[in-house]
Amino acid sequence: MAIPLLNCDMGESFGNWSLGLDADVMPYVDCANIACGFHASDPHVMRRTVKLAVQHGVRIGAHPGYPDLMGFGRRSMACSPEEAEDMVLYQVGALAGICQAEGTQLSYIKPHGALYNDMAANLALLEGVMRAVRAYDPSLPLMVMSTADAAPHRELAAKLGITLWFETFADRAYDANGHLASRRLPNAVHHDQHTIVDQAVMLAKGESLTSLDGTPLQLACDTLCVHGDNPESVAAVRAIREAFQALEQA
Amino acid sequence: MAIPLLNCDMGESFGNWSLGLDADVMPYVDCANIACGFHASDPHVMRRTVKLAVQHGVRIGAHPGYPDLMGFGRRSMACSPEEAEDMVLYQVGALAGICQAEGTQLSYIKPHGALYNDMAANLALLEGVMRAVRAYDPSLPLMVMSTADAAPHRELAAKLGITLWFETFADRAYDANGHLASRRLPNAVHHDQHTIVDQAVMLAKGESLTSLDGTPLQLACDTLCVHGDNPESVAAVRAIREAFQALEQA
Amino acid sequence: MAIPLLNCDMGESFGNWSLGLDADVMPYVDCANIACGFHASDPHVMRRTVKLAVQHGVRIGAHPGYPDLMGFGRRSMACSPEEAEDMVLYQVGALAGICQAEGTQLSYIKPHGALYNDMAANLALLEGVMRAVRAYDPSLPLMVMSTADAAPHRELAAKLGITLWFETFADRAYDANGHLASRRLPNAVHHDQHTIVDQAVMLAKGESLTSLDGTPLQLACDTLCVHGDNPESVAAVRAIREAFQALEQA
Amino acid sequence: MAIPLLNCDMGESFGNWSLGLDADVMPYVDCANIACGFHASDPHVMRRTVKLAVQHGVRIGAHPGYPDLMGFGRRSMACSPEEAEDMVLYQVGALAGICQAEGTQLSYIKPHGALYNDMAANLALLEGVMRAVRAYDPSLPLMVMSTADAAPHRELAAKLGITLWFETFADRAYDANGHLASRRLPNAVHHDQHTIVDQAVMLAKGESLTSLDGTPLQLACDTLCVHGDNPESVAAVRAIREAFQALEQA
Repeated sequence: MAIPLLNCDMGESFGNWSLGLDADVMPYVDCANIACGFHASDPHVMRRTVKLAVQHGVRIGAHPGYPDLMGFGRRSMACSPEEAEDMVLYQVGALAGICQAEGTQLSYIKPHGALYNDMAANLALLEGVMRAVRAYDPSLPLMVMSTADAAPHRELAAKLGITLWFETFADRAYDANGHLASRRLPNAVHHDQHTIVDQAVMLAKGESLTSLDGTPLQLACDTLCVHGDNPESVAAVRAIREAFQALEQA
Repeated sequence: MAIPLLNCDMGESFGNWSLGLDADVMPYVDCANIACGFHASDPHVMRRTVKLAVQHGVRIGAHPGYPDLMGFGRRSMACSPEEAEDMVLYQVGALAGICQAEGTQLSYIKPHGALYNDMAANLALLEGVMRAVRAYDPSLPLMVMSTADAAPHRELAAKLGITLWFETFADRAYDANGHLASRRLPNAVHHDQHTIVDQAVMLAKGESLTSLDGTPLQLACDTLCVHGDNPESVAAVRAIREAFQALEQA
Repeated sequence: MAIPLLNCDMGESFGNWSLGLDADVMPYVDCANIACGFHASDPHVMRRTVKLAVQHGVRIGAHPGYPDLMGFGRRSMACSPEEAEDMVLYQVGALAGICQAEGTQLSYIKPHGALYNDMAANLALLEGVMRAVRAYDPSLPLMVMSTADAAPHRELAAKLGITLWFETFADRAYDANGHLASRRLPNAVHHDQHTIVDQAVMLAKGESLTSLDGTPLQLACDTLCVHGDNPESVAAVRAIREAFQALEQA
Repeated sequence: MAIPLLNCDMGESFGNWSLGLDADVMPYVDCANIACGFHASDPHVMRRTVKLAVQHGVRIGAHPGYPDLMGFGRRSMACSPEEAEDMVLYQVGALAGICQAEGTQLSYIKPHGALYNDMAANLALLEGVMRAVRAYDPSLPLMVMSTADAAPHRELAAKLGITLWFETFADRAYDANGHLASRRLPNAVHHDQHTIVDQAVMLAKGESLTSLDGTPLQLACDTLCVHGDNPESVAAVRAIREAFQALEQA
């Protein structure tokens, strides 16, 4: 059993505005997805966050997004695959430059928000992002949403010579296709820490989840997305970490 | 006699807006200062410009500026040395990422516009920029304005282990301190091609210029700034190139 | 016969970047759609453009767009109707403030680019834009794309108490639904000045056009979109103006 | 005795980032300085803040700043007086448009941060801002820093036909020139609520303060700046309000 890596969005402050409890959650995660200035962060925040990750021995991933600070990168933008490719390259390079200044380097790439969702639904856009990864450094894994049918994404990745890391969520319910259930549905988001830890452990063990319509759902899980937004989510990360340590020792 | 490198600002288009005759001037220069998205350019323009430089075997320099698209990086901003340091790192990394994707790499760093001028006048700011260069890659030369008394800049560079490239201008008159004469003064800007080529050749030969008040002015000249804004300036670059080729063959 | 108003996008320069032959085309149009800083323009360009319109007695319309300078407002963004409503209000107010400083006022509102197209296809988004118009000043007409079936747009406008101005194009071919033919199709764009003037005159006379599949197409035409991008398009505007003057005198 | 108006910066959130306890402090102030999108705020935040001010019967002032979201408008930018003039017009109009949509209107203009400080030190810049006010609506008061020698500002305002509102601070020490003491000096910022309320009452009564070097300082005080950043500052506002109510009833 390969314990999934815990990844968390970090460095989402911007100028005078603070967001996220980065210092609190950093000790419990494996991977810090650091915003690159298009949807959040700025050069100073990025450097501070890279330093914090280095202090805790946490792997650093570039977290590029659409150029939309006002919308936090959560609004789809009709960028062409070529535009997405170049935007990803720019942001990856910017964070890599800061990593180089701090004596470290990128370990993976995880697109953010609407770009992440759009590329899950649009193979041409996904290919644009993959071209950026291949051109920059094909040894860097690309994090993508784990779904019931990952075959098209796996085939495209194989064609371009890219490694995928499949990501799952412990605090969200899934539909039968392995898509996150809409937040508007009842029970779409788990708030209870036991439920969250249980789902994390099932994903780590490779067990099937139960989708919202009751069917079993098998999801590849290289990494699990966790959150440092508030004290409750940080506590949940800590509880998942402890459960995973118990698994490893078992 | 070391013939000075011809450097030219490039990649100053932005989105739907075009600026500069990059393709026309690229064949005649040694060094392309490519804007990095803060005062001009965008990821797509940057990539296109890097490709063009690679095609012509032209060295690529990062051209970072203040975050002011509306003002084209020409308005001083009261950024702290630490802010300037991180902004430079971010922009250098972004362009380096695009270079890496195109199989090339950065050769030097030249700050743009108001940042370039402010660091010439403010040693603390210059040190911030130098810290960025040292942290990123101390083997990359930093381009700075050549002036009559370069000692403080040389000392700071030696302290930080940075190489300086001194830049001069062939189309501008100098005052006795080796500062560019204000554009508001008569005869501050040379429009005649012969005058421009003559000044370029004098700088290349290490001869003294005559400053506006009549005193002789000796300027270090590793590189000469040229312009691709319009057909006249491109023609002047071509004429300087031919004059330099004649010098080399002499 | 009501001669359609000629409207033209103006004030699309931004900072150091120039775009459009505003001064050349202003004498021949009735309505200047002035960009409001989100997809193009800046406060200085807006003021200069308002002054130019005032000099020529041209009506000023606010031309609000998505907040995407890099994409010139041409990329759809998944803004909610409420976000679009507030963005329109902001931009309309900004231009109105500059008009007030120049002793003039807004005459209409025409959303730009992707926002214009998205609201044609999405009634909820259109209603958001209409709410902005109603809240700001319901006497300001809202310019919308004329299509074969304008009933849903007319009904919504009636419900909100908004006046619509239907806009047509003289230099574009239409499909049978009254949508602009994709630029990727052959013959989608008219380059010949006679063809353009003929289509303008037919629209002014209320005659049916022939759509790309050969069916007749009747379009409401309160206003005709013209372009000041280059000397050819300015010449076409002048030719349309002369043809309309001949119509009026007939 | 004219009780000074309590003014507070509001609407400083931006997109996904929250800042300031606007809803908590609004009930205790007279004037809400609402950010206009250049240094903070966005159309949605502005509208929400205008609604909140209307609910509480609080006067709305435009709070325009330099175009620097990353620096929160706190970094000086070398904008020309003409650039500042047009930037102020744009931002004032944008907020006025949102006010119009909410059935209210602007009551005054207070520039923000570095623009506010720069215009206090630079008469040409101040005149640029005053030209914007005059062109937009000369009946709107312009808020400026109260200093020991207000004569140059008064003369310029008289020349341009502008009304000034002089602003003072209850939580800051002053130097002998009536400038705010640098935050780096000991005792520059008052943290004790009694000290803050006492200074507010002295300013309201027209009594002299004691400057840092011990000399008496007489300051015009049309309005007092208060803060809604955190619960402590909100409590101080409430205490000042109560002290002022006692003054009025005395």
